[in-house]
Amino acid sequence: MDCAFCAIARRDIPADLVLDEPDFLAFLDRRPVFKGHVLLVPREHVPTLVELPAALSTGLVAATQRLARAVVTGLGAQGSFVATNNVVSQSVPHLHVHVVPRTKGDGLRGFFWPRTTYADAADSAAYADRLRAALRT
Amino acid sequence: MDCAFCAIARRDIPADLVLDEPDFLAFLDRRPVFKGHVLLVPREHVPTLVELPAALSTGLVAATQRLARAVVTGLGAQGSFVATNNVVSQSVPHLHVHVVPRTKGDGLRGFFWPRTTYADAADSAAYADRLRAALRT
Repeated sequence: MDCAFCAIARRDIPADLVLDEPDFLAFLDRRPVFKGHVLLVPREHVPTLVELPAALSTGLVAATQRLARAVVTGLGAQGSFVATNNVVSQSVPHLHVHVVPRTKGDGLRGFFWPRTTYADAADSAAYADRLRAALRT
Repeated sequence: MDCAFCAIARRDIPADLVLDEPDFLAFLDRRPVFKGHVLLVPREHVPTLVELPAALSTGLVAATQRLARAVVTGLGAQGSFVATNNVVSQSVPHLHVHVVPRTKGDGLRGFFWPRTTYADAADSAAYADRLRAALRT
């Protein structure tokens, strides 16, 4: 298995571990957005959030909540940014939740930039229709 | 209660609803990063992810998974970006999970930009220590 995060879970690749539990581990991103930026991963190889088994979802949220609190209480951040890339921009194909400490004025504006707009109400309604249809199937 | 998302949940403010269920609703962000950008919110007023009751965590993940699939199957995206701002950069103080359709070359590189580095192994170890200590308390 040639997965970097599975290798970290097996301790074959070193990492600054922050959380080490039966179902999940968390470690520092080596190229952090801000220092203290943590990656939370299921120990089991799950490719993306979409494939996360329901049995792990409560644990994933609980660990994310604990980490989001820890960057505040442990690092003095004012808040956090929690994010997951699914497939596109996903550097390692093993689900990882980024938990990034945030402080006002830290330069990570909004959380991402150029926003677009819908042409009109019909334009947005058409997008909502397509999504509702997709959710039904 | 002067919360925009509670007002949407009550149908006092119009929105392009995508999902409308007992515990959660989802609707189009009016200023999307990309068209089809959805906000998933608990119907109950929960300020941030950190305060989400455990009873809602399985449902939150399941709805996020369904929406992440729907932007692919319904809109032809290749993947998705799922993110939550806690306190900092959080425009409405009612938990909302952004689900953004992603396609390679869409311009939303990485998912955010300038990364920093730790000075050395001692620097990163010190951050990991502070986080582990915060998780213990």
